[in-house]
Amino acid sequence: MDRRNMASQREPFLLVNFKAYLESTGKKAVELARKTENVGRETGVKVGVAPQFCDIEQVAAHVEIPVFAQHIDAIPPGAFTGHVSAESVSAAGATGTLINHSERNLKLPEIERAVENARRVGLTTVVCAGTARLSAAVALAEPNMVAIEPPELIGTGRAVSKENPDIVTDAVRRIHRVNPSTAILCGAGISTGDDVYAALKLGTNGILVASGVVKSPKPEGVLADFCNAVRRFS
Amino acid sequence: MDRRNMASQREPFLLVNFKAYLESTGKKAVELARKTENVGRETGVKVGVAPQFCDIEQVAAHVEIPVFAQHIDAIPPGAFTGHVSAESVSAAGATGTLINHSERNLKLPEIERAVENARRVGLTTVVCAGTARLSAAVALAEPNMVAIEPPELIGTGRAVSKENPDIVTDAVRRIHRVNPSTAILCGAGISTGDDVYAALKLGTNGILVASGVVKSPKPEGVLADFCNAVRRFS
Amino acid sequence: MDRRNMASQREPFLLVNFKAYLESTGKKAVELARKTENVGRETGVKVGVAPQFCDIEQVAAHVEIPVFAQHIDAIPPGAFTGHVSAESVSAAGATGTLINHSERNLKLPEIERAVENARRVGLTTVVCAGTARLSAAVALAEPNMVAIEPPELIGTGRAVSKENPDIVTDAVRRIHRVNPSTAILCGAGISTGDDVYAALKLGTNGILVASGVVKSPKPEGVLADFCNAVRRFS
Amino acid sequence: MDRRNMASQREPFLLVNFKAYLESTGKKAVELARKTENVGRETGVKVGVAPQFCDIEQVAAHVEIPVFAQHIDAIPPGAFTGHVSAESVSAAGATGTLINHSERNLKLPEIERAVENARRVGLTTVVCAGTARLSAAVALAEPNMVAIEPPELIGTGRAVSKENPDIVTDAVRRIHRVNPSTAILCGAGISTGDDVYAALKLGTNGILVASGVVKSPKPEGVLADFCNAVRRFS
Repeated sequence: MDRRNMASQREPFLLVNFKAYLESTGKKAVELARKTENVGRETGVKVGVAPQFCDIEQVAAHVEIPVFAQHIDAIPPGAFTGHVSAESVSAAGATGTLINHSERNLKLPEIERAVENARRVGLTTVVCAGTARLSAAVALAEPNMVAIEPPELIGTGRAVSKENPDIVTDAVRRIHRVNPSTAILCGAGISTGDDVYAALKLGTNGILVASGVVKSPKPEGVLADFCNAVRRFS
Repeated sequence: MDRRNMASQREPFLLVNFKAYLESTGKKAVELARKTENVGRETGVKVGVAPQFCDIEQVAAHVEIPVFAQHIDAIPPGAFTGHVSAESVSAAGATGTLINHSERNLKLPEIERAVENARRVGLTTVVCAGTARLSAAVALAEPNMVAIEPPELIGTGRAVSKENPDIVTDAVRRIHRVNPSTAILCGAGISTGDDVYAALKLGTNGILVASGVVKSPKPEGVLADFCNAVRRFS
Repeated sequence: MDRRNMASQREPFLLVNFKAYLESTGKKAVELARKTENVGRETGVKVGVAPQFCDIEQVAAHVEIPVFAQHIDAIPPGAFTGHVSAESVSAAGATGTLINHSERNLKLPEIERAVENARRVGLTTVVCAGTARLSAAVALAEPNMVAIEPPELIGTGRAVSKENPDIVTDAVRRIHRVNPSTAILCGAGISTGDDVYAALKLGTNGILVASGVVKSPKPEGVLADFCNAVRRFS
Repeated sequence: MDRRNMASQREPFLLVNFKAYLESTGKKAVELARKTENVGRETGVKVGVAPQFCDIEQVAAHVEIPVFAQHIDAIPPGAFTGHVSAESVSAAGATGTLINHSERNLKLPEIERAVENARRVGLTTVVCAGTARLSAAVALAEPNMVAIEPPELIGTGRAVSKENPDIVTDAVRRIHRVNPSTAILCGAGISTGDDVYAALKLGTNGILVASGVVKSPKPEGVLADFCNAVRRFS
């Protein structure tokens, strides 16, 4: 990755994980991606989306913001029925991928291979970890970003950046000790602009959010709240 | 499923599993699906394709033959990052799914739940098994079809229907004992029309094929050879 | 297995699964096994125990009742660090093994291989399943016994034989249809003699119990209650 | 851990992994442990053994050298049928455990929990990793020792310390950068005293060996060769 990309990763980034929610499946995935893109454009904040595998192609065809896969398997192309290669999500239009989300943990050698496979095809990698110590461990695999998400707060609406700021500070410190060039996202329970502001203040470079946006009756409102907090911070 | 669908399942069926091969990824998936459709149309044989998750939407948009997912996870829609629900492959245009392929085996309760999830959204289910005994075990989950594929022959070019006809006969007998309405596919090593003819003669209702078609320099030729064997048999 | 063993399997059997409870670890495993043996001897009811791997040797050295492993991996002896072969539990003195407990589900081909490995070294096999349909599926692997245990009732104290007698009756019917010689245990929530009596009345050949005995302050009392119910039934 | 233990860990250590080999199962496990102890005593080199779960109790009862489990599951004591808790291997007499061997890889959060569980009951932890980068990642979980074992050399008789010395040097450097107090073992293909000497010279604190000893017709001879190399180095 060249210096410009590095710089752009330090620019605050808001990534919306669509998970396997019905509210973000098929046509609704495209709609939600468009709404996300609109709010990003209006507020000037860098945003991205991580739809389900089957929706990557259509989402990528309809928006210009970064599209991430939610996972890739640690496999090369080949005889791997039902698996997801870096090549296949890239061919569908993804420019990045989550790896090792707490709902899709990998064995350790698989994390390393998945990051290598992603890098080979030019995907931006966001490797997730649930504790400060594991955040540093995955940073050693040299992904572009690490996302710290304590699983016990995911989906609770109680934001990690307010409920447990120490874990975020500790993660930032540990990650930078092993790899100062890693960008850091923070997630779990983020539901208001204040949560986002608090996360950035703790030294992170952005937010990984899911239910707070996807399950909201007014996703644009929530996203605007988040993006305005990013601008307030910057 | 109504009687007419049942009847159509008994009609010989040739399903091409694209696996994670580069030769069947992205645009090449659409091309190969079109070739498959063409040969099916010209020979009057019922054919289908099972592309990778990311390619289902585009393949389904470009062909009218049945499109299968290669796998679904035993999950409902929800907070399951990186997993594949029956709903998501259906929304992308798949009308069926493989389950429990030997390259993507499931735990036993997952097979039952995956079949139920698929049925709920109207997907045709093909559950795979590697031995005659396991073929009967998965037939008890009441999928539409069972595919018997001894893993030791997959990708070898030595066809199960010729190398080990007894396992196929035994599977047919055991499956029909527990569930006479199950259609039966047979796979592993199928590479010539003679292999296909032999499989049908052993009492199966069709073929599950992958490398024999996908890795061939002339997939149409192979497919035509297969489909002509089906016609010769019928 | 000869006819006499078959007969003895039809004799009601009460198997105590020690799980990984502290109350049944190390010396406490030996004590609990002795108590189980005593109650069995006093009441004339056939009882067995399934301690943790590390306790099999000592338990088998101190009691004469059947000792089961809680699980075996589907591996032959060899380079499988951290795995458990049929040979190793047999060498330690186990005469049987649970397979596919809902807390340790296997992939389908592994169930078949594990049963074969166990049979090869002479271990009695009890394959578990959580639904009536899966009970029949695992019966096709031809274990000595099938244990039907709906996972949603395990550890609740609400006995399957009273809360959901239909699932037990249905399992018995389906198992006997595919393999009439399979003995059938029933478990989940069993905590009183009445629960045991109800289970036998539904056509099962015995009980698989864990927390109801292990977590009780007076395991002998519970076991005596269970065994007296067996005698009342016989 | 106090300073004295730390010191003793820096003393070269030779750990024999019994894997699931028949040659090291049951009574043969006790015999091989005794032979290992004898050679250690005669040469004054610190040695240990890692037998299968079922053999831990008997091995620990017959030798005084450290006895390791080959794996523990990341579970507390409780309703975990077929799993192995730190408490159970400790109760059987183990004083340490391997974690994340390449034949028994764990998901990343499991490694952290397994190390914590082991530490809580006083087990010495040896966490394995297959690459230099992953060695540093597991060192962040703060185990007592890290074992670097490239899986592609395991069981080959081609020693990592001679075939690929760079990976060992690199691992030592990376591990010490994140945690200077971690002791380092090295394994894979070790079969002669020269291999052992080379490993120590690369900066490791000892050897993890399996087939080189277990499958040898004369394990004492091999062990004496290894231990003499340790003395020559010290």
